[in-house]
Order: sequence, then structure tokens, then C-alpha cells
Amino acid sequence: MKILILGGDGYIGWPTAMKLSAAGHDVTVADNYMRRTLMREIDCDALVDVPNMHERVALWKEKTGRDIEVRIGDLDKWDFIDQLFADTMPDTIIHYAEQPSAPYSMLDRRAADLTLRNNVGVTFNVIQAMNEHTPKAHLVKLGTMGEYGTPNIDIEEGWLEVEHKGRKDKFLFPRAAGSLYHTTKVLDTDLLWFYVRVWGLRVTDLMQGPVYGLATDETGDDDRLYSFLNYDEVFGTVVNRFMVQAVAGYPLTVYGKGGQTRGYLHLKDALQCVQLACENPAGEGELRVLNQFVETFSVNDLAGHVQASGARLGLDVKIENLPNPRKEMEEHYYNPVHTGLLDLGLKPTKLTPEIMDEMMAPIIKHKDKIVNDRIFRGVKWRK
Amino acid sequence: MKILILGGDGYIGWPTAMKLSAAGHDVTVADNYMRRTLMREIDCDALVDVPNMHERVALWKEKTGRDIEVRIGDLDKWDFIDQLFADTMPDTIIHYAEQPSAPYSMLDRRAADLTLRNNVGVTFNVIQAMNEHTPKAHLVKLGTMGEYGTPNIDIEEGWLEVEHKGRKDKFLFPRAAGSLYHTTKVLDTDLLWFYVRVWGLRVTDLMQGPVYGLATDETGDDDRLYSFLNYDEVFGTVVNRFMVQAVAGYPLTVYGKGGQTRGYLHLKDALQCVQLACENPAGEGELRVLNQFVETFSVNDLAGHVQASGARLGLDVKIENLPNPRKEMEEHYYNPVHTGLLDLGLKPTKLTPEIMDEMMAPIIKHKDKIVNDRIFRGVKWRK
Repeated sequence: MKILILGGDGYIGWPTAMKLSAAGHDVTVADNYMRRTLMREIDCDALVDVPNMHERVALWKEKTGRDIEVRIGDLDKWDFIDQLFADTMPDTIIHYAEQPSAPYSMLDRRAADLTLRNNVGVTFNVIQAMNEHTPKAHLVKLGTMGEYGTPNIDIEEGWLEVEHKGRKDKFLFPRAAGSLYHTTKVLDTDLLWFYVRVWGLRVTDLMQGPVYGLATDETGDDDRLYSFLNYDEVFGTVVNRFMVQAVAGYPLTVYGKGGQTRGYLHLKDALQCVQLACENPAGEGELRVLNQFVETFSVNDLAGHVQASGARLGLDVKIENLPNPRKEMEEHYYNPVHTGLLDLGLKPTKLTPEIMDEMMAPIIKHKDKIVNDRIFRGVKWRK
Repeated sequence: MKILILGGDGYIGWPTAMKLSAAGHDVTVADNYMRRTLMREIDCDALVDVPNMHERVALWKEKTGRDIEVRIGDLDKWDFIDQLFADTMPDTIIHYAEQPSAPYSMLDRRAADLTLRNNVGVTFNVIQAMNEHTPKAHLVKLGTMGEYGTPNIDIEEGWLEVEHKGRKDKFLFPRAAGSLYHTTKVLDTDLLWFYVRVWGLRVTDLMQGPVYGLATDETGDDDRLYSFLNYDEVFGTVVNRFMVQAVAGYPLTVYGKGGQTRGYLHLKDALQCVQLACENPAGEGELRVLNQFVETFSVNDLAGHVQASGARLGLDVKIENLPNPRKEMEEHYYNPVHTGLLDLGLKPTKLTPEIMDEMMAPIIKHKDKIVNDRIFRGVKWRK
């Protein structure tokens, strides 16, 4: 397949590019280095240095003999995306090209503005570029489980059958996200659903939970191929942050009561899911929604897993319940369905002690690079 | 009250400004003349010439002795809206400042881009300006009944109680709009609902149906105070278009079977509704949704009413069923609740023969100005 990965420099973007290249697909990646720009802006570099995209694809070529094409530019600019589609004419487009941080989107007005305009603007441009160049192509769009929020009913896989006053209809499952970042993904879903209905686009919308981990089948233990390992509160996801905190001897930053429950998955599984979605495309005029995670944990559960791993590895890990800077329920019902990807063939990687300890290894290796000041700053959701 | 009307030059904006000024409120209007620019772009001027905003407020001052302040600028630019809020510090903000045409939003990529970026961008800026300057102010936002689409269940007033697998929750009523324009209003609602939850804003979201009519209590029969009467398919609403078609001897342009049913209201009632919403504000942290229309008609019903009015006035009105350029159901269930505004005191104006004939009078007066080529061009929803 000819696969175009938008946002191919990101935490999941680059590992996806290697995975699909290794699987024999013809891969092009596009990115404007937004994540790097924003990480620099708030002084939150990743733990392990990350080569630029041209260097990354050269390393990949050296290692595997396979080519990945790179295009650097802003997908929110029509000229760039128009030319990109005209040149590559993809069968499949994977759209990761969004500002990916919830705390960043809540930093201040300017950060919120960038998040909203970039995320919705790029999604719109992708839809328009597909319409003009590749109307039969399949779009695999990264959404988030956070679109649903934490409703008091079971979360179905994208859709909800409603019976009301004796009549029935089926709707997008109601969304009520917890940050502006997550809300931009709700807006994306609304836009996609509209254009799927009127133009018959083929779209898979992946409602992904928080991802953890660094090494994949393609990186092995080659540091130079690793993705960004952010351990700051803005760009780091919770499991990765807790692991670095454990190694740094920094008490694990549990927000509030720690009962916040979400569906998690390993980076390797995120790649599996995306590959399965690409290789089993949605139909014409179909918005297929898949809930992408393998198991649910509360923040307290995760802190406990990291603490136990620390104990096995000789680290004395403390846990601290901080006042919650976010506005979210700290104890709530959470029961999301997630059978779609299993039906497509996903083989889940669970967060076992072995996996935990394996993930701690590269962090211990790079322990000296941890800058404690980067770990927590308390970006507040409220005014 | 100090009332700031965003989009104060529009079809409903200017009549609202006069209405609230007449009621003794301190009114400022802001606009960037986008509607005028777009009307000129596609060569679809209104039937009756409309003075610019500075001329309009001078005419209003001459007639009533009352002042309305005018600010011309782009609300999608932070500098402009920031200064506007700092200078006026409104108690109430009425937000009409959006590209208002569904067919325009489906014209081509460029028009869609303008619609999306302007509408969502302005709503975002309004939220941010409220947060920075007037966090306790009340926002009255113009949404549309079109956000709901035409579901197979009764449309409730903004919210839906769902019982699912033995558990219950309440959600925004599911939305599935029929054009990109309408979809931008769905995105607005999602954004507003998010910031109402996290910041406790006070918001009334008016789900308005198509509006018809020209004269209001404030205009009387003074042409110079009239709003835009568009009769083209892009900026004209259906009743206004049909009336001009009837006067021009142009067969009424019914799309498809004509069973498309919507909730309609007279311009005078739209003003009543907005005034009621302003004078009875939503609470802190409340997103109050009101379905704003007074009666439902199918397109065939409306064509029949206009034809009957024509017969009374000596016009031979023909009806033509054209191939539907839109993608919409032409026969469907439609039963929307609309009690909220009645509870606040709305006195509905029904589309009686007297009202129909009264609305035809200014059109007959300006019959010579009708340009038939402007009436229909068949903007297609599909590629």
C-alpha cells in the first residue's frame, strides 16, 4: 500500500512509519516539527535525543535497506498539503498531525488558539485534499478515548442506539471531553462524520487511550530510533512520566484522589492497531470508530505498578497525592467497550511486571539526563 | 443592560440592534461586513439597498434620538475583539458573527475554509474575550435547529436523557447537521459546552429555525431601515426566496419531493426570542439551549402558502420540483420540542394569510429591482 503518515515525527508517528515500512508498505511521512517547536518553547525536551526526520530515515535505510520519504511542511497550509497529495497519491492516509497535549491546550489563550486552529484546520485540509486527489482512499484518523469523557453509562464503540418516546435512532456516541485538546478531537469527529455522509469518504476514527513505552520491534534497543520520551507533565503521558519520576527519585505525581480511570495501551499495540486499521479499511461512506486500548487502570493502579517495578529494581518509589490541577472526576464509572480491534486481530500486550521492568531499562540507562525541574509545573484547567 | 452585538450588520443583527436599543438597552454593534463582501463576490445583492452601519445608526438616531455605537473590524482577529471587550465591558454578548449560508459553505473548498475558520475562530475568540474581560457576562449565541438534522426520534430542547444497559446519563442532544455551515454550529456548541463546564461561563445557545420577513416594529415601512432581503439561493432563506420568485413570475424552486420539514419563525419573533434570552439570562456554568421557532412546515406547505398569497394578490404562481442539489431526506419524521421560549414569554406570530400578504407588499413595491439570474444556480452538496 502507498501510505501517507501525517504527523510522522511524533511519539506514535515515527514508530508507525518504521512498522509499516518493515511490513513492506510504501511510506511517506509529513511533519512540520510542531511538537519539537512546542517542547523547546516550554523547555521540555525528551529524555533521549531524537534525530531529525531526514536523519531518522537515513538510519532506517542503513538498518533495513528500506526507503521512507520525508516532507517537511505545514499541513494547515493548503499549498503544502495539496502538493503532497498530488505527488504521493496515497491509498491510505494516517492522520496524527495534531497538537497532542491536553495540558498544553490549557496553558493560556495563545496555546489554546494554536491547538484549535491547527487540529481542526489540518483535519479539514485532509478531508479537502482527499476529496480533490484521492476520494477513494482510506483515512485512518487518530482520535482519543478522551472524546467520550467519563459518562455514567457504558461507552460503546463510537455509536449509540437510542430509544426515545417509542422511536429509535442511532447516533454518534455522545462526547464530552475534558480538555480543549480532547475537544478538538470531538470537532474533528463531527467534521469527518459530516463529510463521510455527504461525500462518501472512507474513514476509520481510532479512539485511542493513553499510550506508554518506547521500544518497539523496529527500534530494538537502538536509542537512535526511539521516539520522544517526554517526562514533563505537558507532553509526557502518565505511565512514562511515572517511570521517569520513579527513576529520578521524584514522588509520583498523582492528581487528587487518583481514581481517574482510563483505557491504556503499549506503544507496540498502538502500532498493531493502526496497521490492522490500514490493512482492513473502512467501506465507502463508512465512519468506522474503534476504541483503541487494551485494559483500564486508575491512576492509583498505575502508580502502584510503577512503585512495584521500582521495588524490584532497587528504587524507593514514593507516591504523592497533589491537588488536582485539572477539572475532572476523581472517582467515576468507566466501562468502555473495545472489541473492534480484537476482532481485527489485535494481540494485546498487557502491563505485566515483565513489561514494566523492560520499559524501565532505557530510562535507568539515561537517568543522568533527567532534569527534575521539568517534571511538574501544575498547568491549571481553571482560570 | 450593556449589550454587545457581534455580527450586527446581518439579516438579524441590525433588526436586533434596533429592537434592543428601542427597549432602552445600551447597544454596541460590531461587524466586518463579511456578508456584504460575500454577496458581492457571488453577485447576489439584496433586493433593497442597505446603508452601511454608520449610515444605519445615523438614521436610527434621527428617527428615535437613540445612540448605537458601531465598530467595524474582524472578530476573528484577537487584537480587535480584545480591544472591543475592554472598551465596552458588556453584560450581554449576542453572537451572530458567522458566515450564515449553508449553500455558500458548500460552494467550493475556499468557501468552506472561510466558513469553518471564521465561524469556529470567532466563537473561540468570544469565549476567550469573555474569560479575560467579562467572565460573568451572559453570552447569547445563535445556533441553528439544523444542528440536530432530521433524526428519527423527537428532538428535545438541547439535551437528551439516555438510559442504556440499566444506567442513566444526560447528554447534549445528538447532532448531525446537513451542511458544513450547520456543522460549524455543531462545533461551536461543542466548544461552548466545554468552556461552560471548565470555566463556568453563562451561555444561551439558540437553536434557530429558518427566519422570514423584513419589516419589524422598529423599521415600520421605512425601507432605509430594512435588513438584507436576499432572494438568491445562497443567502436567501426559503420563504423570502419563494415570495420574490412569486412576484418575479419565476416558478417556486422546490428541491426534490418538497417534504423537507423545518421549524420556522418570523423575523419579529426572532427578535422577541433574543430579547427574552438577554433579559432572562442563563445561570453561571449553565449552557441553556432553546429551540427557536414557532411552527413547522414542509417546503411544499410553504410553496402552497406563497402560491395562495400570490392568488390573493393577482399573481399566477407556479411551483417546480427541481432535482435536489442538496443531500437531505425529502420525507422524514420531524417533531422538535420548543417550549423554552414560550415559557419565557414568547408571543408567536404565525404564518397567516394576513402576514404572508403583508410580507409580499415591500417585494411588490421593489419588483423592478429583481434580477432573475440571481434566483437559482444549483449549488451542489455532492462532488
